[in-house]
Amino acid sequence: MTSPPRDETQTPPEEATALLDEDRLREYCGVFGVFDLPEAAAYTALGLHALQHRGQEAAGIVSFDGTRFHAERRLGLVGDHFSHERTIKRLPGASAIGHVRYATTGETMLRNVQPLFAELNSGGFAVGHNGNLTNAQTLRRELINEGAIFQSTSDTEVILHLVARSRESKLIDRFIDALSHIEGAYSLVVLTNGKLIGARDPLGIRPLVLGELDGRYILASETCALDIMGARFVRDVANGEIVVISHEGIRSICPFPSRPARPCIFEYIYFARPDSIVHGRPVYEVRKAMGVELARENRIQADVVVPVPDSGVPAAIGFAREAGLPFELGIIRNHYVGRTFIQPTQAVREIGVRLKHSANRAVVSGKRVILIDDSIVRGTTSIKIVQMMRDAGATEVHFLISSPPITHPDYYGIDTPQKEKLLAATHSLEEMRREIGCDQLAFLSIDGIYRAMGVGRRNDRQPQFTDHCFTGDYPTALTDLAAENRAQLSLLAEAS
Amino acid sequence: MTSPPRDETQTPPEEATALLDEDRLREYCGVFGVFDLPEAAAYTALGLHALQHRGQEAAGIVSFDGTRFHAERRLGLVGDHFSHERTIKRLPGASAIGHVRYATTGETMLRNVQPLFAELNSGGFAVGHNGNLTNAQTLRRELINEGAIFQSTSDTEVILHLVARSRESKLIDRFIDALSHIEGAYSLVVLTNGKLIGARDPLGIRPLVLGELDGRYILASETCALDIMGARFVRDVANGEIVVISHEGIRSICPFPSRPARPCIFEYIYFARPDSIVHGRPVYEVRKAMGVELARENRIQADVVVPVPDSGVPAAIGFAREAGLPFELGIIRNHYVGRTFIQPTQAVREIGVRLKHSANRAVVSGKRVILIDDSIVRGTTSIKIVQMMRDAGATEVHFLISSPPITHPDYYGIDTPQKEKLLAATHSLEEMRREIGCDQLAFLSIDGIYRAMGVGRRNDRQPQFTDHCFTGDYPTALTDLAAENRAQLSLLAEAS
Amino acid sequence: MTSPPRDETQTPPEEATALLDEDRLREYCGVFGVFDLPEAAAYTALGLHALQHRGQEAAGIVSFDGTRFHAERRLGLVGDHFSHERTIKRLPGASAIGHVRYATTGETMLRNVQPLFAELNSGGFAVGHNGNLTNAQTLRRELINEGAIFQSTSDTEVILHLVARSRESKLIDRFIDALSHIEGAYSLVVLTNGKLIGARDPLGIRPLVLGELDGRYILASETCALDIMGARFVRDVANGEIVVISHEGIRSICPFPSRPARPCIFEYIYFARPDSIVHGRPVYEVRKAMGVELARENRIQADVVVPVPDSGVPAAIGFAREAGLPFELGIIRNHYVGRTFIQPTQAVREIGVRLKHSANRAVVSGKRVILIDDSIVRGTTSIKIVQMMRDAGATEVHFLISSPPITHPDYYGIDTPQKEKLLAATHSLEEMRREIGCDQLAFLSIDGIYRAMGVGRRNDRQPQFTDHCFTGDYPTALTDLAAENRAQLSLLAEAS
Amino acid sequence: MTSPPRDETQTPPEEATALLDEDRLREYCGVFGVFDLPEAAAYTALGLHALQHRGQEAAGIVSFDGTRFHAERRLGLVGDHFSHERTIKRLPGASAIGHVRYATTGETMLRNVQPLFAELNSGGFAVGHNGNLTNAQTLRRELINEGAIFQSTSDTEVILHLVARSRESKLIDRFIDALSHIEGAYSLVVLTNGKLIGARDPLGIRPLVLGELDGRYILASETCALDIMGARFVRDVANGEIVVISHEGIRSICPFPSRPARPCIFEYIYFARPDSIVHGRPVYEVRKAMGVELARENRIQADVVVPVPDSGVPAAIGFAREAGLPFELGIIRNHYVGRTFIQPTQAVREIGVRLKHSANRAVVSGKRVILIDDSIVRGTTSIKIVQMMRDAGATEVHFLISSPPITHPDYYGIDTPQKEKLLAATHSLEEMRREIGCDQLAFLSIDGIYRAMGVGRRNDRQPQFTDHCFTGDYPTALTDLAAENRAQLSLLAEAS
Repeated sequence: MTSPPRDETQTPPEEATALLDEDRLREYCGVFGVFDLPEAAAYTALGLHALQHRGQEAAGIVSFDGTRFHAERRLGLVGDHFSHERTIKRLPGASAIGHVRYATTGETMLRNVQPLFAELNSGGFAVGHNGNLTNAQTLRRELINEGAIFQSTSDTEVILHLVARSRESKLIDRFIDALSHIEGAYSLVVLTNGKLIGARDPLGIRPLVLGELDGRYILASETCALDIMGARFVRDVANGEIVVISHEGIRSICPFPSRPARPCIFEYIYFARPDSIVHGRPVYEVRKAMGVELARENRIQADVVVPVPDSGVPAAIGFAREAGLPFELGIIRNHYVGRTFIQPTQAVREIGVRLKHSANRAVVSGKRVILIDDSIVRGTTSIKIVQMMRDAGATEVHFLISSPPITHPDYYGIDTPQKEKLLAATHSLEEMRREIGCDQLAFLSIDGIYRAMGVGRRNDRQPQFTDHCFTGDYPTALTDLAAENRAQLSLLAEAS
Repeated sequence: MTSPPRDETQTPPEEATALLDEDRLREYCGVFGVFDLPEAAAYTALGLHALQHRGQEAAGIVSFDGTRFHAERRLGLVGDHFSHERTIKRLPGASAIGHVRYATTGETMLRNVQPLFAELNSGGFAVGHNGNLTNAQTLRRELINEGAIFQSTSDTEVILHLVARSRESKLIDRFIDALSHIEGAYSLVVLTNGKLIGARDPLGIRPLVLGELDGRYILASETCALDIMGARFVRDVANGEIVVISHEGIRSICPFPSRPARPCIFEYIYFARPDSIVHGRPVYEVRKAMGVELARENRIQADVVVPVPDSGVPAAIGFAREAGLPFELGIIRNHYVGRTFIQPTQAVREIGVRLKHSANRAVVSGKRVILIDDSIVRGTTSIKIVQMMRDAGATEVHFLISSPPITHPDYYGIDTPQKEKLLAATHSLEEMRREIGCDQLAFLSIDGIYRAMGVGRRNDRQPQFTDHCFTGDYPTALTDLAAENRAQLSLLAEAS
Repeated sequence: MTSPPRDETQTPPEEATALLDEDRLREYCGVFGVFDLPEAAAYTALGLHALQHRGQEAAGIVSFDGTRFHAERRLGLVGDHFSHERTIKRLPGASAIGHVRYATTGETMLRNVQPLFAELNSGGFAVGHNGNLTNAQTLRRELINEGAIFQSTSDTEVILHLVARSRESKLIDRFIDALSHIEGAYSLVVLTNGKLIGARDPLGIRPLVLGELDGRYILASETCALDIMGARFVRDVANGEIVVISHEGIRSICPFPSRPARPCIFEYIYFARPDSIVHGRPVYEVRKAMGVELARENRIQADVVVPVPDSGVPAAIGFAREAGLPFELGIIRNHYVGRTFIQPTQAVREIGVRLKHSANRAVVSGKRVILIDDSIVRGTTSIKIVQMMRDAGATEVHFLISSPPITHPDYYGIDTPQKEKLLAATHSLEEMRREIGCDQLAFLSIDGIYRAMGVGRRNDRQPQFTDHCFTGDYPTALTDLAAENRAQLSLLAEAS
Repeated sequence: MTSPPRDETQTPPEEATALLDEDRLREYCGVFGVFDLPEAAAYTALGLHALQHRGQEAAGIVSFDGTRFHAERRLGLVGDHFSHERTIKRLPGASAIGHVRYATTGETMLRNVQPLFAELNSGGFAVGHNGNLTNAQTLRRELINEGAIFQSTSDTEVILHLVARSRESKLIDRFIDALSHIEGAYSLVVLTNGKLIGARDPLGIRPLVLGELDGRYILASETCALDIMGARFVRDVANGEIVVISHEGIRSICPFPSRPARPCIFEYIYFARPDSIVHGRPVYEVRKAMGVELARENRIQADVVVPVPDSGVPAAIGFAREAGLPFELGIIRNHYVGRTFIQPTQAVREIGVRLKHSANRAVVSGKRVILIDDSIVRGTTSIKIVQMMRDAGATEVHFLISSPPITHPDYYGIDTPQKEKLLAATHSLEEMRREIGCDQLAFLSIDGIYRAMGVGRRNDRQPQFTDHCFTGDYPTALTDLAAENRAQLSLLAEAS
């Protein structure tokens, strides 16, 4: 809750955000935890680096050295700060949790960077959260009325206060007490003076896996964070499960009534890293399968299949193979655009998308192009990419999307624009095609995506996945939304 | 409670502290507040600049724009950050409070930088504090047991939680309720959404004055903060008084039983700026009077009176005039030593004091020198200064101190070493003289200093000043000390 | 030649270099220039951004506003500095040249960052250079003996001094005079008070193209720098040609005897961006053709073709198609590794290559893998990549390289290790295979690569390309090498 | 000649300059050198720190380790950079020279920061210069015409080129050859691979002293740089003398015809530190003597003598003693104003001088005040100081200046405004008095200042001091001024 000396040689967050592809969904967060492993903070930094795709705005680590907790929280990439030995040295101890974060609104504040920490009468309590609570604002107001002082605008802090105020005597019971009040999506890692705790919401909306290295347990959002350090995948933490890791070993608690899992389907479409295995499914193979289904649903006369890099590549490989057409890199991505390239003056500002992507004219010119992307959000980038193909000489542009149209916003930790800004929520397919300027536009069907997931078809009474972005079928109550207080407003404006 | 990107081109705080004269007492803080004056934050920055001598480690301002509060808190000098227009622009509004801070321990943390802020159900509440509570740790433990989550290790945060949890309905009553629980020294400035509040502890240990500019009220630790902006001094806030400034004007509340004031005598000896007027006494004139009394108590044959710059200058002027001896600048201060000069290598490290001071050989050589300083803490600097005089050719060095020997630590906002480190607590006068290496050592007597203060002599049953550093006569209970939990330990170590 | 305030929050250059894949060849530089186009510096920044792959260590721009020249030179990526409006505003004028740079040795010095500038009696003269002179040290010694004072250790500065000292009267003649003394590879852009000049060495070793935007001329190392701003490709600057662009239009001068061009073949293998067209050949298509030739030379029983990302991708696509095998992303690249991820502690240091690449287990496990890379330098990364495939369950690993073995160092602007460090210079094919740990190792043949280039076969008496890295056939004299003074030593060590 | 990454948390130089008291004369530079002493750079940093008053804009050190030279040049104070061990470690070797600098114009460029360095055929040659050449522009043009490339806009670089181009065979002869071409004021320190050289212009306008520590020689602008490290003062370097220090010992050369010395009188009035001894005269005692003479020339009825801090203090002590009036600190200086306090908004901008100085009302109110300052340049600060005295209740303000009126600009290394801006050049005494708003204004007479210097009276045919600022009697030719090319313009604008 403080003002750091802003280093103006770095791009200010607001500008940097402007650079990020605004026409993308974003995941809020990734979490990692390790217990009883020497150099815990160094391993946590590695794990967070592997989870960097889940949040690029800020990162934090809290370690415990047996006596004291140590925290470092920074804006920027994991590698910007946590790869420095001097930072890691400030995080001694054999247990640590970490967090990477992306924030939706302009409120890029250091005080929101996780893990959050509270000093309870039982000792320290640090928590990192992936997901979003749907009744956080309602709870926050109640807690303030009772005299709680909030340090952040984060929904996660509600959990801290609920634990601090619980009248249960044992810490784990206080934690369960706290979870019993919250709604929404959460995969949590918690560090106390003696325990590493993992918890997933009753539907298992966000992922959380258990791994093992040198006989010590690890928690992570995705398996890729295990792979980077040569750790072994043990199992997914189950929906509704709490795992308590201590020097006595691991204990599993399922305090709430059992329900079928309903993981978020967007992890497969876009968020998870292609080399991760989510709930037993290799993400890369699922994406190729989406491309295959897309090709089966759309038989097109064309010369070349071109992915929108990088997320469209696996689906394009699947598509090209199923369609018997050549797969070509018709769009080249500039790897140096980083977070920092702001178009400096008006005259060159329109250059926009070319800063990141350029057409590979040799591949595209004079060709009928099938362009494969994973999703359309606002459609603003799609317009530019299609135009870029035409400028490079494509005679036809068939724009195929390897997931269904996004028609509803998310409230579980994905940053979606308001419904009015979602292209598919306000336009018919033909209107979208005209807006985007392609010769043909097609989306994968709901059935197609469930087939690609390997579950036959959608069970409409009890859907196998959280898929409200396509269907409007929200899996939990939306208390704050109903109370019209969804926005996390703070009375205090502070850069940090 | 966050980690700022440390700018390594700045001297890290721990090193900078090493540079500061460790043989000095330090004041914790200075406070400032202004209500209903356009550009409130800019005036607050000016006021804090004038109060910079009360705390050089960090500074913060919270402003209120009628709707939202805005905060900026930084390590470093006021001018380092708050003189930049872009910083002031982030602090809109016509009301603001500010704080400068010096911290005793190594825990230089941004989350301890004031003003602190809480979002209450009645709105925002920001507070800046000069002084130190003597029961903060005891209260903190109670509050944590009740579920409060602390964001800092500052004793001031206790006040926030007491206000947040008070069951009174009106905010001012909640504030009085909070004050009724705390012990020790405090001069507070508080900013709410409609009020600027000032409060002083029942004994008025730390100073707080009320000023006026263009018909708007100002609160400040010292009158010099009024002078810099051409504001008019109205009066001291009284001991035990709360002043509430709002659009309805100013209201004075004295909620606790009336007691005689007992301001800290060290403000006159060392802390306050010489051009400030504290409780009606011009500090410069008091210091000269201490020199006069010192001369009356010590008639010495010598050639020249030399002050240890800069704090010894007024007493030396008074001494020289009373003694009829020439006043000369026998020690030259290097104005560029700033916060940053670290001796780079071992071989040149012993140069030490010469980085800041150098002997003016032309004045000292072959002379019997009377050296005047305001106090001796550890004595380490005194040894070097005396040696410097001898190296420059002084034939005799009479070291005279314009205050009594410091034998007891402070718990009210002055950074004193532990009793064992106080030279006068463990050495006889002759032992001290030998340690320091001077030909004669003398201190002003207790009677002498009370005479210089213009109050005749010390009323031992009800002393006119807080003077425990010389007498061991502490004016309040020392609850935390009795409970052996004086140290403000946190379970969390974080640079910010 | 000055010491910038090092921003220690950035990774120091030496560490950052350690992070870069040390097992890669590197290009020294890229150049760009524009004449008589408003916002010339902004366009130059864009062009340099598109050329960033040619040099990531430093960037610089010099503009001319009709009266004065303006320079900004920085360590870091183009986007780190030159995307800020305030930087571009310090570069007014309608003409500008720019430079991106990679430096071989540890001497990362700001004074070596180009464009270099000299004030001649005729006015200012700025130059940016891609390539390397082979007699720079010899000339430097002569010039110093004549009283010249060098400001950098750059070979390019020799050109400045030769121009400054030429006895010719017209500037262009002085420039030609200077070129007549230098040997080696150079593509130069020069800015004077009225002219933009481009020049290529007699063999055209490094590329340089002429473009046009809104009727104004542009010079750039590659066509991708034209594409990013929608400029039109006009033609390659010819080998040995000087083009002089002024308000009078464009003039071509060929002052030296005509010789056949001999461009560097490594531009096609690795350096140039795949969407660039170099001497009429699309780089992407050439790389695919190398993969095709490689497949023709090596018929292998395998299950999957996996590229080492990103440079191996086009060849792998070509190979897979020719071989009739599936192309799969068996290695996933972490896009966030950036320049900054240093392994913080010893225990996790061995993780190395996994910071940047991870095996896509789903694709590789239980498979016979054909791994495609573009080249082998030291072989250190190859060892790790092959091991990564085995760890992920590959049953066989066939490692195929789409260019011939590198047996000789370069002296024309490619950073190659000393001959002893080149794996192929000191190992037989079988020794290399065992070192790398793959089941099979194969390189494309010299004939194969010339076929892929579309020129039939190598003309040994007058080779069509500069290919000494494979053949030892250096196209120019190596004067400095003969004189054993190749190293650019300076008597002065300075970080900047 | 490069662009450092500007640290925007620091005050940009142009703003910082705005903060400096613009109504002050400034010295360009101070120099230091040490030969054959371990940790030479650390000692040089200390010496420069003691000379900081001679230049606060930038500092640089060049060391020689027996093989290579090492340079660090930075904007800012010595302590900002050269007190860091990591900086000193980059400057190995037992010989070093250093330089502190103040620059007149807005061209705060790193490439102008000294010592400058050239690589000659005989080895490295570094030079630091205090003073200013009066024919530098004329020589620069000639050198450019001959093909020299300048790296800076500094007049000092002319010396480098003259040495580099000299046809003499021995380095010392080349140096003498170079000196034979230059006119003006110079105290030089030079470091070569085996020698430390000091040189003073034929009139000895700027000071340079020889010292000794542990049997090793030191050169420094003032004796205070010897005192800080406990070095012994040996003697002044004589006017027109070159001292050559090597492992063979020290050698003195006087290559030019002998002339009487004529040191700059302003060193005594304002520039030199009060504890320095310049040409055998203690500066502090000279300043007191100026106050005594001033009191003898002006017998005034008043209550109190108040110095304008800090430079007016010694003269005020002398005045008060001679006049039998009390000396009092009627103006308090804020020690924290540093380089950084910019008034953030318009409304508070007028506060101006109060940021640095405040009236000590207790001393001034109701009194007839004699205010003592050392000089008046533009008079802008004097107006504010006098007004501040009146605002604080002074009944009369007698403003007395301890030097004669400044009527002519300097061209020898003092930053004076143009003649039109010098108050005394354009106003009569009475006009000045009215402008400043004091009741009485008086300056010390020329005779008075020569008396204070202890030389009886001015020898008008051969003045004992350089005093053209008062008399217009310039001691050397002003070649550049005659040629109307005094300004050091560069064709290149670069922040560094």
